[in-house]
Formats: sequence, C-alpha cells, structure tokens
Amino acid sequence: MKSITIAEVADIVGGELAGPVIDTPDHLISGVNSLADAGSSELSFLANKRYKGQLETTAAAAVFLSATQSAPDGLGIIRVDDPYLAFAKLQRHFYPLPSGAGKQHVSAVIDESATLAENVDVGPNAVIGANATIGAGTIIGPGCVVGENVQIGKNCILNANSVVAYDCILGDGVILQAGATIGADGFGYAWDGMKFLKIPQAGRVILEDDVEVGANASVDRGAIGDTVLERGVKLDNLVQIAHNVRVGAFSVMASQVGISGSTVIGKGCQFGGQSGVAGHLVVGDGCKLAGKSGVLGDLEAGGVYAGSPAMPHRMWLKVSALMMKLPEMLKAQQK
Amino acid sequence: MKSITIAEVADIVGGELAGPVIDTPDHLISGVNSLADAGSSELSFLANKRYKGQLETTAAAAVFLSATQSAPDGLGIIRVDDPYLAFAKLQRHFYPLPSGAGKQHVSAVIDESATLAENVDVGPNAVIGANATIGAGTIIGPGCVVGENVQIGKNCILNANSVVAYDCILGDGVILQAGATIGADGFGYAWDGMKFLKIPQAGRVILEDDVEVGANASVDRGAIGDTVLERGVKLDNLVQIAHNVRVGAFSVMASQVGISGSTVIGKGCQFGGQSGVAGHLVVGDGCKLAGKSGVLGDLEAGGVYAGSPAMPHRMWLKVSALMMKLPEMLKAQQK
Amino acid sequence: MKSITIAEVADIVGGELAGPVIDTPDHLISGVNSLADAGSSELSFLANKRYKGQLETTAAAAVFLSATQSAPDGLGIIRVDDPYLAFAKLQRHFYPLPSGAGKQHVSAVIDESATLAENVDVGPNAVIGANATIGAGTIIGPGCVVGENVQIGKNCILNANSVVAYDCILGDGVILQAGATIGADGFGYAWDGMKFLKIPQAGRVILEDDVEVGANASVDRGAIGDTVLERGVKLDNLVQIAHNVRVGAFSVMASQVGISGSTVIGKGCQFGGQSGVAGHLVVGDGCKLAGKSGVLGDLEAGGVYAGSPAMPHRMWLKVSALMMKLPEMLKAQQK
Repeated sequence: MKSITIAEVADIVGGELAGPVIDTPDHLISGVNSLADAGSSELSFLANKRYKGQLETTAAAAVFLSATQSAPDGLGIIRVDDPYLAFAKLQRHFYPLPSGAGKQHVSAVIDESATLAENVDVGPNAVIGANATIGAGTIIGPGCVVGENVQIGKNCILNANSVVAYDCILGDGVILQAGATIGADGFGYAWDGMKFLKIPQAGRVILEDDVEVGANASVDRGAIGDTVLERGVKLDNLVQIAHNVRVGAFSVMASQVGISGSTVIGKGCQFGGQSGVAGHLVVGDGCKLAGKSGVLGDLEAGGVYAGSPAMPHRMWLKVSALMMKLPEMLKAQQK
Repeated sequence: MKSITIAEVADIVGGELAGPVIDTPDHLISGVNSLADAGSSELSFLANKRYKGQLETTAAAAVFLSATQSAPDGLGIIRVDDPYLAFAKLQRHFYPLPSGAGKQHVSAVIDESATLAENVDVGPNAVIGANATIGAGTIIGPGCVVGENVQIGKNCILNANSVVAYDCILGDGVILQAGATIGADGFGYAWDGMKFLKIPQAGRVILEDDVEVGANASVDRGAIGDTVLERGVKLDNLVQIAHNVRVGAFSVMASQVGISGSTVIGKGCQFGGQSGVAGHLVVGDGCKLAGKSGVLGDLEAGGVYAGSPAMPHRMWLKVSALMMKLPEMLKAQQK
Repeated sequence: MKSITIAEVADIVGGELAGPVIDTPDHLISGVNSLADAGSSELSFLANKRYKGQLETTAAAAVFLSATQSAPDGLGIIRVDDPYLAFAKLQRHFYPLPSGAGKQHVSAVIDESATLAENVDVGPNAVIGANATIGAGTIIGPGCVVGENVQIGKNCILNANSVVAYDCILGDGVILQAGATIGADGFGYAWDGMKFLKIPQAGRVILEDDVEVGANASVDRGAIGDTVLERGVKLDNLVQIAHNVRVGAFSVMASQVGISGSTVIGKGCQFGGQSGVAGHLVVGDGCKLAGKSGVLGDLEAGGVYAGSPAMPHRMWLKVSALMMKLPEMLKAQQK
C-alpha cells in the first residue's frame, strides 16, 4: 500500500491537524489500525467509549477525534466532524472497492444471448443465463449463478457462489456476499385436503442501488408482485427476507434477522441480530429493534423496541429488571 | 401467458361464477394479482382479513370468495370452497412446475457410473458423483453437487448451488431451493481429555416424496441411522435440522427454525419462524409453535405453544400481557 | 466394512470385556448401532439416560458401560471410562476420516501460481485462486472456492460449495461443511449524511488447527485485524461469527448461534442453539449458555446462563417458573 502524508490524510477526510502533528505534515501514514495495535505510521480512531483509556497508550501517529473529544497531551490528532466516517474514508482510500476489468474466465458458462457491458469480470465456473444483462464494471465471482433474464447494474460485486435467480433485478453498486441467494421461491402452499399444493412464486426480487446482502442470507422472490429492498438497504449474514416484503431505503438489519411475508419495513430502520417480524405488518420509518426482538404488531415510526413480544425499549428495561425480582415479589406477597 | 376465459377459470378451480360475471363467461383472464393491483383481465382473492376493504375498490375481473364471504354489489365473483386453494390452482395453471427435458450442459461433470433416467436436466457446472441415480424429469440446477451413491427420484428440482451429500436419498417431487445442503455431517464430538474427537456421521438423510427445503437451509445426516423428513414436509429458508431428527408427514417449519438432534416431530405440525426445539424430545402430531418459541420438553399432540420456555399459547398471552404490568404490581405491593 | 473381534474392539477403546462376552472374545463385530436397532454383531452404548430401559431389550453383542453403570444379567459389556468416547473411537475405526490422494479433477480451475502439496484432492469445478497454498492430504470438495493468497494446512476437508475468501488462513485438520463461508466482508458502514459508506474489511479470518465450521455457517473477515477461531473450536450449521470476534480454544457453538463484532469468547465455552452475544463484550472461559440466551454484558468465567437478557441459569429457572404464576400473583394482589 502506498503511504501518504498525514496532511494528505487530513485532506481526504476533511479534517484538521491538531497537537504535535501540526509540525510534521509530511509524516508518512501507511494505514489505519486499532488504538491498541497501531504503530507510528498508522492512524487510529475512537469508535467505542470502551476503548477510551487506550488514547493514553496508543502509538498511533494520530487519532481521528471530534471537536468535543478530549485527548491526552502529546497525542497526534486529526479533528473531524465524525471520527468513524473519517476512518471509513481513509480506509476506502487505502482499499478502494474492486471493479471489473473485462476478465472472463474460460471456464465460465455465459449464455450467448446474455449481454455483458464493458469491463465485466466473470470468475471461474460462474454461470450466466439466457438474456441476462450485466452492467459495466460489475464483478461476477467464481461459482456464482445468474439466472435467465436477470438484470444486474453497474459496479456490482457478486461474491463466490452467490445466486441470483431468473427475472430478478439488481441496481447499480449492489454487493452480494458469498453464498447469498436472491430470488429463491417464497414459502407458500395451499392445503388441498390431501397434500400441500405449491403456490408458484411468480414475482421477482428487486434490489435497488447500493443494496448489500450478507453471506448465506436469502431474499425470496414475490408470490405475486415483487420483493423489494430499496436503495442503500444493508443486510448482514444469514438474514431472511420472505416473499413480498418491502424494506425502505437505508434500513439496516444485523445477522440472522427474519422478516415474514408481505411485511413493509420503513426507511432508515435498524434491526438488531436475531430479531424477527411477523407477516403482513407495517413497521414505520426509523424504528429500532434490539437484538432478539419479536414483533407481532405494527410499529409506529421512530420507536425503539425490545423483547418478545416487542414493547418500547424503556418498558422492556424495567420489565426485564423486574422479572429477576419475581422471586422476592412472590415472597413478599406470601407473608 | 395464454389467456383463458373466466368460465375456464371456474372450471380449473372447481368454482361457480357469481355476480355480473355470470353474463360474461368468455371474458379473458390473463393472470392473478392482489386486490390492490389486479386489472380487469385478472383474478384476485382475499387471503387475509386485513385487505377486506380492498374488495370495494379492486379492479379485478372477479374475486375468489367462499360461500360465507360477502361482497359489494357489482363485484365479479367465483364462489369456491377455499379461496386460497383456488388461487393456488389457478396460478399452477399459469405457472406449471418446470420439468426436465434431457438437457445436460456440456460443462456439467457427470460421473460415468451415474444413472440418469430420461429427461433429466443437468445445469452448467453441476456435479453428479459416482453411482448416483436420478429419476425421470428431475432438474439438477447449475452449480449443484450430488454426491456418490445419492438416489434422487422423479420430477425433483434442485435449484442452483444446492448440495446433496453422499448416500442420501430423495423421493419423488422433492424441491431444494438455492444453497440448501442435505447430508452435511451432524454435530457430534467426544472429548478425549485433550481435544474433541469427531464422531463419524455414518447415517444418511432421507427426504420422502414432495419434501421442500428452503434456501440455505441444512438437513444433517444421521450419526447412526438416518435423519428423515417424511413426505410433504416443507422447510423454509435457513432452517436447521440436526442429525437423527425425524419430522412427520406434512409438517411445516418457517424460516430459521432449529431442531436439535434426535428429536422426533409429529405429523402436521406448524412451527413459526425462529422457533427452536431441544434435542431428544418428542413433539406430538399437529402441534403449533408460535414464532420464537423455545421447546425444552416433550409436547402433547395438538397443542398450541408460545414463549421460551414454551408454554400453552393461551397462558403465554396472559403472561406476556402481565409482564408489562410488573412495574404496577411492584408499586402496589410496596404500598 | 471389515468386521473385527470383540476383543479387538475392547483394545481399540481401551476397555475390558465383562458379562457373557468374556467367553467369546472372537465374536465378530461389524459396526455400532443404537440400543434399539443394534443386531448381534453390533456394539452399542448408553449416551442419554432417556434410553436406559433399552438395556433390557437390546440385541447388541455388547454395550459400552462405565464402571458405575449397572446392567441387566446376561448383557454383553465392555467396561470403559467414558462410553461416549469409546463409541466415538470405535466409529472412527470403522469410518476413518477421508484423506486426499492427489486426485485433481480436470474441471477444477487451479491457478498456476497456487502451490499444492502432495496428495491434495481437488473436486470437480472447484476453484483455487492465485498464490493459494494447500497442505498435504487436504481435500477441496466439488464447487469449493478458495481465494487468492489463502493458506490451507494439512489434512483439511472442505466440503462441497464451501468458500474461503482471499488472504484467510486455515490450520491443519480444519473441516468446513457444505456451503460454509469463511472470510466474507464484516458488516460495517459509516453514514456520510446521504448514504452508507462501506468500510473496507481489510482483516482476515484465521481458523486454527482442528476447527470445524458447519453447513451454511459464516465467519466474517476482520475490519482491521483478524477474526480468529482458536484450535479445536467447533461451530454447528448456520452459526454467525462477526468481524474481529475471537473464540477461545475448544469452544463449541450449536446451530444458529450469533456472535456480534469484536466480542471475545473464552476457551472451553458451550453455547446452546440460537443463543446470541452482543458486540464488544468479553465472555470468560468455560461459560455455558442455554439455547436462545441473549447476552448483553460481559460474563465471568465458568458461569451458566440462560434467558434474554441472560441471567444465571438457576435464577432463570426460578424466574421462568414464576412468570407462569403471574396470573395468580395478580389475583392475590387484587384481593
């Protein structure tokens, strides 16, 4: 990785040098590291209060700090509005996202009716189906399967062994982590008195621009109509999105979350790991769910919820504390 | 899709025209859609009471309704015993399940000792191991791996990148969604004082006729003896079935359910998403579990359970309501 | 499978013949089976008290029993220190772990810069990236993808369609079950006021010797620094390990467990299915979590926990029993 000066770092992140580094703007920076592990040619940052004490001992050349964060004397500082964002920007400088260069491995099976724009990479043993279209700069990783009639935008990255089933649509900048499946059949059957009749899942999945889907996560195609993740939605590993769900722009779901069929999630929501939402519900914009929440009813916009069944987070804090007092309460009652 | 007359629709689903459509039996129907989105050449149905108001405004040519469901004046109706089943039957007419046609892609690796019946499709880069046998009409999707000695019945569909490990047996009409793994090793180790000794998982997985396994779900092979999903079992995405589990016919498990080793699940059970059952238990026929239930003991047939630890659903409704009253109860006690 | 005498069985497991089998040391044993299913040429064992009654009726040639386990008259016995370990050792005799023999399928894509030791198997349609190194006796299954610069030790087994992303390191004896993904990007974004900026995940995953990762499980690469599973860690199917987690040696996690980012898990821990641990926590050595536990704070070494939020298991037993008494408690209070 090519080193850059600390003055260039400040420039990249839109920050200002402070502390002793003011006098050494040409000091070379080779990367970013944690407070504990950073060396004298590395930048660092304070992302979690838990690690604040490490500001005293870090060997980092400088630390991204906001205007209100105090620092020990002698610490190199780059003052920024948002230290975490500054960290992200600097890392993106050192590790830009990969982009396709037109390398199509001879072992890839690309249907002759598929249309690949310029600079599309297709990895070994990947499969591109009939009439698929793939935009410029997109990387289709080894072992990926892209079904018939799939449309994939520009600068997407499909990591190894991920799958996009027929007819699904991915916007620009979409990233699928390894093993993610887009467009598997939704879970729908009708009982005919003797057995289950499988209901055709005739809809699609639409992933708008900048959606990312985690490793081994699954987004099912709609039964009728589409399953839609609006732009900027981020799903962690092993998340389940059932048929006909819609997730609003920039909502974020941690690992192992499950959203049941036809539920509509608002924009800018944040769901903790292993939380779940029942089917046919409406969750308003900006809702937050603690990990392991179980949502059984509609939620108003902007709320913070926890528990199963989910309740306001404040109430949950009280209730879960009182649950541990139940033995005492029973004793008191029995006196 | 080829349109059919509304009279033909009534015939396919075993229903009767009612309302104004009685006079237009030759009206052409091109598909099925939701009440909100259906156009004048589409059928619709009422599957969830939540959408009942849309009967007033739908533009659908007609709606599947049961004898007891009322409808606004002027609404086209096809009276049926079970509207959801009628919807399923009509969709199956428009979207029949695919069936193999004998297309084996040149890039597929099919061991010369494998036996493929007529009309088996094998997709690009799929792998079929030694001595595997595959029944007529089955489709092995791109990137699938079928291990040695695997037996697969007729008219199965293995979607992209799904895996069936050695010796496992699939009946007729089995469907695996993308990324599903059948026959991975069960989770078994014995501590030898210094390290874990891996216990060979010498059994198989047997999926009886008409089983469906969801995307990225896993059904482990038995340690001794087999893991068995009886006919018609349906597993949603990301479900975990541990070694030596037996699931009774027509039981249905929603996404992210986990069943621990050697547990026996009865017939006709319905498990909500993210529920879990501990190992070596017996769950009776027809049990229902709410989402997120955690089962730690045997369950009698026909019960409905919720919560973790699981309790009768009625009790759980009371208990979870009272939990939110704990702050008041404590206050009252402290007076 | 080649039969062996019961005297040889006793030798393999370090046990002693007892009961009638003392007189028939040359009796041939062809395998191991459950008490219920074993025939007269099979050994069996009692692993779960639930099945104790079957000692009376088993047809097994003999049963592994510890010195303190009683047995009905006439039952063939092999006395051992640990019956479950004896079972494991005998099964390993009958089913040794497979090892590579240098078979590299012609359809595999092995970069010319990769270095494969002797006796490495590479299955059909597997992909080995540039500069990867793979140790002797390792088996790369069909459809697996091994990224650039990956280092894999000796005698590893990568089952079908598993993925190891670039730069990750696997020690000796590592096993990946089908569909496992090692080294997908961790889940990290910084909000830039308009959209999420993806934070490069520049670290690696390091799986030390004898680690096993279950089917469709995911271990993410570190954001900065590495995600590490120490030697002998065993993960069941569909487990999620987030970026920069460290799991101590010989810890074991059942299916669908999720560990959030930067959390440090001690050695010798045992986590029940569907349990979860929040991010940036420290869990001490030897902790046990019941299934579905939700851990929101640091845990001291050696504790046993249950519930969400997790509490000491003994307290959870009381609390969960009392929850079901809430209706009575309220009634009593209202009198």
